[in-house]
Formats: sequence, structure tokens, C-alpha cells
Amino acid sequence: MDLLLLSNSRNHGQSFLAHALEEIDGFLGDARRLAFVPYALRDHDGYTAIIAEALAPLGIEVVGVHTGADPRAAVADAPAVFVGGGNTFRLLRALRTTGVFEVVRHRVTAGDLRYLGSSAGTNLTAPTLRTTNDMPIVEPPSFEAFGFVPFQINPHYLDPAPDSTHMGETREQRLTEFLEENDVPVLGIREGGWLRVCGETATLGGANGARLFTRAAEPRELAPGADVSQLLATRPRYDSPA
Amino acid sequence: MDLLLLSNSRNHGQSFLAHALEEIDGFLGDARRLAFVPYALRDHDGYTAIIAEALAPLGIEVVGVHTGADPRAAVADAPAVFVGGGNTFRLLRALRTTGVFEVVRHRVTAGDLRYLGSSAGTNLTAPTLRTTNDMPIVEPPSFEAFGFVPFQINPHYLDPAPDSTHMGETREQRLTEFLEENDVPVLGIREGGWLRVCGETATLGGANGARLFTRAAEPRELAPGADVSQLLATRPRYDSPA
Repeated sequence: MDLLLLSNSRNHGQSFLAHALEEIDGFLGDARRLAFVPYALRDHDGYTAIIAEALAPLGIEVVGVHTGADPRAAVADAPAVFVGGGNTFRLLRALRTTGVFEVVRHRVTAGDLRYLGSSAGTNLTAPTLRTTNDMPIVEPPSFEAFGFVPFQINPHYLDPAPDSTHMGETREQRLTEFLEENDVPVLGIREGGWLRVCGETATLGGANGARLFTRAAEPRELAPGADVSQLLATRPRYDSPA
Repeated sequence: MDLLLLSNSRNHGQSFLAHALEEIDGFLGDARRLAFVPYALRDHDGYTAIIAEALAPLGIEVVGVHTGADPRAAVADAPAVFVGGGNTFRLLRALRTTGVFEVVRHRVTAGDLRYLGSSAGTNLTAPTLRTTNDMPIVEPPSFEAFGFVPFQINPHYLDPAPDSTHMGETREQRLTEFLEENDVPVLGIREGGWLRVCGETATLGGANGARLFTRAAEPRELAPGADVSQLLATRPRYDSPA
């Protein structure tokens, strides 16, 4: 399997994908055609145009999977897929409704399809969407996701704001509640960072690092460049109350 | 129907329910016994003790529904129920598993049970949990909620932070995405505020007001004391793409 999982599509003050362009270039290698899945946003054409423009400097052709008669076909013969960010619930529902989900899962697992994900697209590479930050604006058939990695990812990971007076849960509190119900590590990747998975190797890249949450242990800081391959040996246990 | 729906259980710098104690006192009237539903948090005993302590000054007896052999029984003969905040997905799943959901729905709809909700407990009075802020840490059988009101509520409503560099969606962006998929008004109640529903009348109470989001219109500010009874005539349309 060959995965590049971005925390976010866009850094503050930069254009789409600018912070990760070099990494994307290396990841795609000789695959210069990309099937783009725009389902996490409402405007599929507009979203595809933004991504095409962002990747044009690399000479990469971007094809929105929504443009053909059968969206499965666009994914079935592409060397690489990019599943973009937006709302994770909307994304998962559309992937299921169109049948694109099964094609992507099968080909990525078989090592036939490079998978580039960002935000919601990164969320879905975990076994479930249970650590998304998104609002459940629509109801997917289930919370089951691709499961390319055996742990959970929390993209856009955000440290607590020390002077906040808002009483909603911090991200860390939310992930602690997740761990009360599930014995599954969560990798919180800060904006600017990404996870690169290549076969048995998983490495943290980009800027700002990540925070690893596991049950019954203090959260652990991970610096950019950290080898996190041992996470690929995780045996996740969902619905396993502490 | 008789509902008091708090945005939050606790204001910054105050103890539990302190900001709403007078309103709760008037709402409960001669009902001095309260069945408390602690399922949104993991520690049911601890949570019930906190609420009992908070309401002790009013002379209200608080009984955790988890303490008896059958949690449905505690709700079946109480004059009032309080569904507390925490994680909305965990709350809804437990309400369904225990069967408390059906008893509460039936008795509140029949006008036999006063319903006090806070945060997650307020969320569930809408037809669905689609506008919760919470992380989907567990999977309930469906997103269907009580539907005591025919519109959505977003508790802990938070205005955008003008100087934020974080690229995750603001609350307003999330609710705009909800309205792309659903033609259902959303009442975003800021912390410190609440909604009081009594029969055909709905009034905004507490501090800080609310923001009303409807499809194809600018969001509208509502001041404390605003009469929002017209929202009770809403005909919600879910999964109705714009």
C-alpha cells in the first residue's frame, strides 16, 4: 500500500496544497494522472477545478470522478486517487452510494492504486470515521471506513487554547472520550503535517508534528520525521469500554 | 409539551447550572423530583452526584436513571427528566439500548413529563442529531432523535474567532454545509442561553442570544427574550439538496 495522508489541504495564508506540493510530486512519481473525489464538498466542478489548478505546476492531469457516466470507472483505471477534504459524513455517504468506496478499497489494498488523502479523505483511511471533527450533516449507512491503517487519525489536530472561556470540549477531551469507549490509538496530526505509509513503513512528514493518544497512557508528542511504523501493528478494539 | 433546553450546563467561572438555577426552579414548579440521565458521560455516579449537588439548594431530589434495575422505571414515574450534556452519540446510543428513549419520547409528547436538557440533552430534542458539535465516538443505531421541536438546535454556538489561523471549518461554515443538504432551520444558542418551549410558545432566555440559520437567507440575530414560536410551525426537509 502506498498512502500520503495530509492533515489539511491548505495552510493559513497559502494556496491549496502549496505546503505539500513537493511531497505530492515525489509520492505520485510517474503517475501523472489523478482521479479526484470531490464528494466532501457540495460543488464538485468548482472543487475539481481548484485541485487541477493547484497541481498544474507538477504537470498532473486531474479528472473529477463525478464527470463520467460511472464514477467507478474513473477510479478503476487511474494510477492514483486523491480524496479531498470537506465534510467526512457527506464524503462517506457519497462514496457508498456511488460504489466508488469498494473500487478504491479493493485497488488500494491490492497495491494497485496510490491513495492521496486530505482531511476528510485522510479520516477515511482509518477503520472508522469515529475521530472526525466534522458535523454529522448527513447519515452514512455506517461509520465503517476504508481501514487502510489499523488505528484512528484525527486531522487538523488542535492544541487547547489556554485563554479560552468556551465550555465546549477541547480536541484532547474529545479524543479522551473516544478512548473511554474504544481501545484504539489516535494519531492527531497538526495542520501542515502528514503521514506517509509505504508498505510496512509509516513516517510523519511536513511541519508541526503530531500527538499520539492511547488508552491508559499520557499523550505522546511526535516530531516531524518520526517513524511510526509500529502503529501499523495495532490491533484495534472498538466498543471496548475502559 | 414543557421543555427547558439549555445551551450549556456550566458557564465559564461558574459552578454547574448556576447560571440557570432560577429558571430551572420556575420550570420545575411543584415537581421536586428529577430523573437524571447521565449517559452522555462515562462516569454515571459521579455525574449524578454533581447534578444532585447543583440542585440541592432548590430542594430537588435527583435520581440517576442508571441506579435502579430498570432505567425505564425511573423515568416512567418521574414528574420531570433532566438529560445532561457530554457526548451526543454516546447519549443517544445508551438511550436506545436501555429503552429509556421510547419512554421519554412517549411521556414528553403526551405532556406527562417535563424535559430539561443541556447541551447533548438539548441536541436530542431536535428531529436528528445532525447539528451536534460532538465527535462520533460510538455509533448509534440511527441519527433519529426525539423530535420534540421540528427544527435543529446547535448548542454552545460559537462565533468565528477573527484572528484564528486554524483552517478547520467555523461553526457557521458547518451549519451552512448542513443547510446545503437539509432544508431545516438551525437555532444556534450561545453559551449562557436557553430555549423555553411551553405548548405553542417558544422563547429565548438567558444571556447572549442566538443565531438563526435558514436556507437561502442571511443568518439572523435573536436577542434574549425573543419569541421564536413561529419555528414550531417548521416543516423540516432532510436530505433535500439545495
